[in-house]
Amino acid sequence: MVESRMGNSSHISTKPPSGTRDFLPADIARRRHVVNTVEQVYQQYGFVALETPAFENLTTLLGKYGDEGDQLLYRLLLRRDALSRALAEPAVTEANLADQGLRYDLTVPLARVVAQYRNLPRYFKRYQIQPVWRADRPGRGRFREFIQCDVDIVGTSSLIAEAEVCAAAAQVLRKLGFDDFAILLNHRQLLRGLIHASRMDPALEATALVAVDKLDKVGADGVLTELHERGVDQASAARLMDLIERPATLDDHALIERLQQSIDSAVGQEALAQLIELRQLLASTPAGDHVSIVPSLARGLSYYTGAIFEVAVGDLAGSLGGGGRYDDLIGMFGRHPIPAVGFSLGLERLLLVMEERGMYPALSTGPELLLCWVGIAPGQVLDVAHKLRAQGLRVEVYPDASKLGKQLQYADSAGVKTPFAAIIGDAELADGKITLRHLASSEQKTVPLDGVRAYVDGVVAGCTTD
Amino acid sequence: MVESRMGNSSHISTKPPSGTRDFLPADIARRRHVVNTVEQVYQQYGFVALETPAFENLTTLLGKYGDEGDQLLYRLLLRRDALSRALAEPAVTEANLADQGLRYDLTVPLARVVAQYRNLPRYFKRYQIQPVWRADRPGRGRFREFIQCDVDIVGTSSLIAEAEVCAAAAQVLRKLGFDDFAILLNHRQLLRGLIHASRMDPALEATALVAVDKLDKVGADGVLTELHERGVDQASAARLMDLIERPATLDDHALIERLQQSIDSAVGQEALAQLIELRQLLASTPAGDHVSIVPSLARGLSYYTGAIFEVAVGDLAGSLGGGGRYDDLIGMFGRHPIPAVGFSLGLERLLLVMEERGMYPALSTGPELLLCWVGIAPGQVLDVAHKLRAQGLRVEVYPDASKLGKQLQYADSAGVKTPFAAIIGDAELADGKITLRHLASSEQKTVPLDGVRAYVDGVVAGCTTD
Repeated sequence: MVESRMGNSSHISTKPPSGTRDFLPADIARRRHVVNTVEQVYQQYGFVALETPAFENLTTLLGKYGDEGDQLLYRLLLRRDALSRALAEPAVTEANLADQGLRYDLTVPLARVVAQYRNLPRYFKRYQIQPVWRADRPGRGRFREFIQCDVDIVGTSSLIAEAEVCAAAAQVLRKLGFDDFAILLNHRQLLRGLIHASRMDPALEATALVAVDKLDKVGADGVLTELHERGVDQASAARLMDLIERPATLDDHALIERLQQSIDSAVGQEALAQLIELRQLLASTPAGDHVSIVPSLARGLSYYTGAIFEVAVGDLAGSLGGGGRYDDLIGMFGRHPIPAVGFSLGLERLLLVMEERGMYPALSTGPELLLCWVGIAPGQVLDVAHKLRAQGLRVEVYPDASKLGKQLQYADSAGVKTPFAAIIGDAELADGKITLRHLASSEQKTVPLDGVRAYVDGVVAGCTTD
Repeated sequence: MVESRMGNSSHISTKPPSGTRDFLPADIARRRHVVNTVEQVYQQYGFVALETPAFENLTTLLGKYGDEGDQLLYRLLLRRDALSRALAEPAVTEANLADQGLRYDLTVPLARVVAQYRNLPRYFKRYQIQPVWRADRPGRGRFREFIQCDVDIVGTSSLIAEAEVCAAAAQVLRKLGFDDFAILLNHRQLLRGLIHASRMDPALEATALVAVDKLDKVGADGVLTELHERGVDQASAARLMDLIERPATLDDHALIERLQQSIDSAVGQEALAQLIELRQLLASTPAGDHVSIVPSLARGLSYYTGAIFEVAVGDLAGSLGGGGRYDDLIGMFGRHPIPAVGFSLGLERLLLVMEERGMYPALSTGPELLLCWVGIAPGQVLDVAHKLRAQGLRVEVYPDASKLGKQLQYADSAGVKTPFAAIIGDAELADGKITLRHLASSEQKTVPLDGVRAYVDGVVAGCTTD
């Protein structure tokens, strides 16, 4: 087929849309390796699976992610009569051309689900591994369609819930082979306390957090400039930066002591006490050795109310994932607030770092056996294929009546690399046998048709002597 | 949590959008049972996995599905500057408000992928199990978001390819427990031959097929009326209906004989010869006993060029899936035509029939053990949880400091139904032990902490005597 395929065609692009990707079989093997590991760990931590639709009503999505988030939503254009009515309005705007949009994260759909179904367990521990879509500028490890792997515990204010989601995320990373990750902890109410201690106008708190959130990207000077632009006086901004920056020489205990002395509000002291307890809870979990308190961590999303987390490795700008407590979000959908906390791992970031570090084990994809045939009827070939598959073998049938050499060449071609070729002709058929060739070792043997599974397993295990 | 959750909220709907669904843990267990079976069989037939983005450029999608299909596409509203420019045009229409849309099937994305990547195998046998979206009227087993399970063989005109995709679909159905399905075969060129034999104006061929496609829904009289409306003269319409209708008393051999006598064109005879050969090829496969030729089968999509298939069971209007050969579709994206054939199973239809027939095995979901605790510190509880999970157990930790009775009640509540509760207090902790209670049998025993896995397995296997 190679000779007849010319890549991009003359008339329409065959590339996937900007920011999205096609996953060919080898990609999928790596993606599934990671997803299966994530899923297995999440289940071990007692989480159960949930899936929600790709799109939601805009009433569900809007106002949950901050202004920047709202702008990155993919909206679905109205159709037929609804579209005609919208186009007949005096002013046609984005707001009246769509009432549904693609999922932006997995947390807001969870909140909607919790408000909708009455028969969920009192503590709903769910995991969800699904794509989300954001019309963001694509970049390294940043796509417009990407998979999030979320765990959340709904229905309790206990810090055990914070500890469990952090421990589960840490265990995923360890199981994938990471040992150098950091879990950064902070608390939205601690940030409030620090803002209070900076003597900034409390009305500027939300806008100040947006600026603080950019510390990693723009540095301390950049944040100071942005705080100024957002109306924070210079003295308060400087005090705030002094409070949230963490010198590398300061260990957690010294940092905690400094914070305890600086904070002049009950809300701040209470948040700090929670972080201290959370650190202790995590000590005996897979997260224990990786935790540190980072007072500048802000997290972009607007729905967090308590502890917030982020997980990072040195060789990746940005995070591998993060999360936090959001006790008010579900109440935006239901009649009563329900406390909740969650952690989200970004599949694409994990894959990127694992790829660069060469962390994948050998992953097999594709069939074990290419069935080649000479001088027999296609119906007989399919009959043999059926008998081989009944032994549990993954069998590809060479579809055309080509010469044997060409068939064998195909079995060993770059895009295929089947481990075994099986050859069947008149003689083998008459004897109920088949000739098997292990393409890497060139080992070849004629075996009874019903003994193929055993032979293949034997060669793979390195036990055959012939 | 039940008491604090009131279902639909006062202000915004918490239902999933019309035609879409939330999948709670028990739903997911059933969906995965079927998907895993499909995937395992597809792999046994030598197919490898492909995944493509949820949305495609509209240039990729439009004109592939017929007019009705194009109208059911979900389009993504343009954003920012592109939207402003579109809204500034003198005439604002659907066509200039979107340039991307949600995937409508998995075949067109495959055709784009084949045209795009030069390093695919000469015969690309791919499976793809992903959602597609159609803005159709929701109905029984018909949703706006639904999963298709496709297999396709690209790069050969051999009828072995038709046989392999039909056999794989049939094997899936058998493995799921279906034994009463029918695989209906027809051929687009046979339909052309029958239209020729009816002496209809050849220019009306395409429009006549749209009418014929509705035979199942509207009956013979309905099709005759629609043919008339589409400009077919009454005599030709009557002859066509006579040719395509298959009396229940006619077996395949008699039908074939009748068709051979009626068809007066080379193209029609050649198509019939292919169907006869395909029937023979399928004889030794899992599809063999289920196949019959149905000359009225038309299939809605416009890209088919050769054999077409549909799989049906008596208790479901519409099909469980279908497919066919589409030798011209890939050429619409690349420089050269590449032959291809595929079969698509509809997950939602399979689930619907399996649900109604009670075909699911017992499927376990959720944790194996709820860890209850009394009078010890939360950090100690998490330490025990970690040791239990290290034994491979799926463990949920009760998060709040409630009384033991309440904790045990939760383990056995309707939404949870954990098989085991584990109880740990001061005494157990001091001894390195834990008390296990099998909730169904009320069997209870105190065992060493590192022996929990063995005890749980023993009780499950029914081997313990205590």
